[in-house]
Amino acid sequence: MEVENKQILLRGFIKGNPKESDMELKVGKINLKVPQGSSSSGAVLVKNLYLSCDPYMRGRMRDFHGSYIPPFLPGSVIEGFGVSKVVDSDNANFKAGDIVAGITGWEEYSLIQKTEQLRKIQSDDIPLSYHVGLLGMPGFTAYAGFYEVCSPKKGEYVFISAASGAVGQLVGQLAKLHGCYVVGSAGSSQKVDLLKNRFGFDEAFNYKEESDLDAVLKRCFPQGIDIYFDNVGGEMLDAVLLNMRVHGRIAVCGMVSQQSISSSEGLRNAFMLIPRRIKMQGFLQSDYLHLFPRFLEHTIDNYKKGKIVYIEDMNEGLENAPAAFVGLFSGKNVGKQVVRVAQD
Amino acid sequence: MEVENKQILLRGFIKGNPKESDMELKVGKINLKVPQGSSSSGAVLVKNLYLSCDPYMRGRMRDFHGSYIPPFLPGSVIEGFGVSKVVDSDNANFKAGDIVAGITGWEEYSLIQKTEQLRKIQSDDIPLSYHVGLLGMPGFTAYAGFYEVCSPKKGEYVFISAASGAVGQLVGQLAKLHGCYVVGSAGSSQKVDLLKNRFGFDEAFNYKEESDLDAVLKRCFPQGIDIYFDNVGGEMLDAVLLNMRVHGRIAVCGMVSQQSISSSEGLRNAFMLIPRRIKMQGFLQSDYLHLFPRFLEHTIDNYKKGKIVYIEDMNEGLENAPAAFVGLFSGKNVGKQVVRVAQD
Repeated sequence: MEVENKQILLRGFIKGNPKESDMELKVGKINLKVPQGSSSSGAVLVKNLYLSCDPYMRGRMRDFHGSYIPPFLPGSVIEGFGVSKVVDSDNANFKAGDIVAGITGWEEYSLIQKTEQLRKIQSDDIPLSYHVGLLGMPGFTAYAGFYEVCSPKKGEYVFISAASGAVGQLVGQLAKLHGCYVVGSAGSSQKVDLLKNRFGFDEAFNYKEESDLDAVLKRCFPQGIDIYFDNVGGEMLDAVLLNMRVHGRIAVCGMVSQQSISSSEGLRNAFMLIPRRIKMQGFLQSDYLHLFPRFLEHTIDNYKKGKIVYIEDMNEGLENAPAAFVGLFSGKNVGKQVVRVAQD
Repeated sequence: MEVENKQILLRGFIKGNPKESDMELKVGKINLKVPQGSSSSGAVLVKNLYLSCDPYMRGRMRDFHGSYIPPFLPGSVIEGFGVSKVVDSDNANFKAGDIVAGITGWEEYSLIQKTEQLRKIQSDDIPLSYHVGLLGMPGFTAYAGFYEVCSPKKGEYVFISAASGAVGQLVGQLAKLHGCYVVGSAGSSQKVDLLKNRFGFDEAFNYKEESDLDAVLKRCFPQGIDIYFDNVGGEMLDAVLLNMRVHGRIAVCGMVSQQSISSSEGLRNAFMLIPRRIKMQGFLQSDYLHLFPRFLEHTIDNYKKGKIVYIEDMNEGLENAPAAFVGLFSGKNVGKQVVRVAQD
């Protein structure tokens, strides 16, 4: 049974931030059966329901091979996290009708050959799309980064940039649950309002309205910062370095402010690492996967008790995925950016 | 009994690197008795034998109050580590004739009121001056930084900058004793020769002869670097970031290349922290003082067995202390820079 299959392709490698024109919509055909033959042995064919727009994907659009994950292939379908329904399976672990989360393609139907990282989702009263956010890679990034990299202690002063985003919103809530004082930065008054009134941050500011980041940090943290969960890099990281307390920890999670590798302005305040004895650590959630079951349990439990809230920004239709993705880099999204490809 | 007391004073706060003219020699008088009176209760009066020139002292010559130790007072005697002989004591822990190591003044005789950090030296067959180097703060910095911050494993690839200096020479030898592959950089062919032929480094290079630091690091470490012991900051740190292996560790010990706080060029490659999951940590030896006895035992034992060698650069006479100190920042010293003020 052959059907139409809309796909989003990467046209060519990008420089700077992605534009919608770096991607294109193509309409192909696909047979809704796993093909016979050794190359697709063990594969599953899925219908994609939700696709996740994540900032790390910008890195895969660049012609840079020194990272932890190879670049996309120009002319090929973009890959990312998604929630999908199994249509046909050549794999004993999955059967038609199963809902799975994992790496899939930006298209209506995908043949997934690397099934090791697909996770079967037990349906319960949590929306399916949450499995690419709160209960997926971004949520787990927040969990592993906060508990394993930041080594938080009750009463410590925590600062989070891009704090209303997929990762930041959960870090802040975990920090509050842990008994920390939590301040976040974001790029609009609407987001600042969310931080203070929905996510329960103690304080928040709109960095676009602050001409002096050092001054606003000194105002929010007269005692200094113990933990900085850095999602943006650049100027904010530099200003934070001046305001860290002795034995402070910086979890370096993302550098969304750095539009390219080579044009970086450069960190000028790294000298502060020594007098303040700061630990600054880059990390990837994939190094902590042994903690994933514990994370799921902790997060679902707190979510169901109403102690954690989650906000996503849902765009409708695969054809709108490029715009949704591009919007991440100008802060257009409010909460975790997801694209709904199909209802079920 | 009043005697002459030559002293080296700081004239005023410096910008950039220190010059000899930032300091001046003054000849005062001192009574060789601890004065009577509550303000000097518990003090000791010492004759200074050896003074240590350490790069961190540049920081105390600047009008910057955000560090771990306050600036010197313009017009006052410079302070630093030294080895001294007790002449008179109002303190039950010290008596005339004792040899002590700790913070003293850049002068012939000093009245030391903060005696908590003075350490009595048991005379044995190790030269007294080694107690401001191999067995003092620089040696302990190497020990704590390597074992506690770098978490070394046998077989790992270790790079050390300013490797023939007071700290670097010991880090390299500890790393070799630990079974690591060790490369060092230094600023002259004489120093490179020392690294390879006296300190037993596997490889070494003169950074002043390399136009492309990234290329020389790739040549020395085709497999990448697990541990970087950073004594210089700046361009070298930036080049190293491009060559770190996954889960690498950077101990940030000194930034001797940074002539001032504000003129820093900036680190451009901090983005590498994420894909390589690098831990970059500033540290001070003073946070690890509980390990000092273990360090002394380990170092003396290895030194006496000939497994650790130590090279110092000894200048004669207090009046030459400013030049010796200034020389640190152009790499004039070969090995640990010490000034002999008196023989005994």
